[in-house]
Amino acid sequence: MATRHKAAGNCPVERTLEVIGAKWTVLIVRDLVTGTKRFGQLLKSLQGVSPKTLSERLKELEASGVVTRTVYPEVPPRVEYSLTEKGHSLSAIIEEIRRWGEDWLPETAADQ
Amino acid sequence: MATRHKAAGNCPVERTLEVIGAKWTVLIVRDLVTGTKRFGQLLKSLQGVSPKTLSERLKELEASGVVTRTVYPEVPPRVEYSLTEKGHSLSAIIEEIRRWGEDWLPETAADQ
Repeated sequence: MATRHKAAGNCPVERTLEVIGAKWTVLIVRDLVTGTKRFGQLLKSLQGVSPKTLSERLKELEASGVVTRTVYPEVPPRVEYSLTEKGHSLSAIIEEIRRWGEDWLPETAADQ
Repeated sequence: MATRHKAAGNCPVERTLEVIGAKWTVLIVRDLVTGTKRFGQLLKSLQGVSPKTLSERLKELEASGVVTRTVYPEVPPRVEYSLTEKGHSLSAIIEEIRRWGEDWLPETAADQ
């Protein structure tokens, strides 16, 4: 993934955002926290993402060591995505994001 | 800010990302956690952001109730940005993001 800006190396917040800062990435991780998913399952869950973008994000997450991709030699081949240990450790961030949404953004207000 | 996708209202993670998911937003909040800043201080700290984008992000954060903007009637007028209580409560997310970067993305590796 492209470096966001020059000072990223100095701040752990910026380094993390290089891995999970792109649009859809946090939602992909959220979906994989609950278990292995196929490409089509992720595509369906992330309403509005294009197959091209989802594929790019998954490749970036693989390159970052957050996601593993497993191909099962069936006909047609079955491809599944899972979180690595590094990926699972992102769940603490996801939970804080979830908690903030629950505390500060009630569902009814967000639906206006 | 535009709604990311239709299901956002149902998931508190998605609702939160509508507030802090845009590029630069988390870094703006990170900078304001340590105290009130002027526009020029934020512009300098966020290396690579354009004044136009920074201005847009600050307006979005004001509209979300995360940031307050105070104008002091000096010549020239002094404009300062601070976090609201809602904004300060984002620091739990920032700290988890920071911790993950420290644990999984050592500075030397990120600088390669």
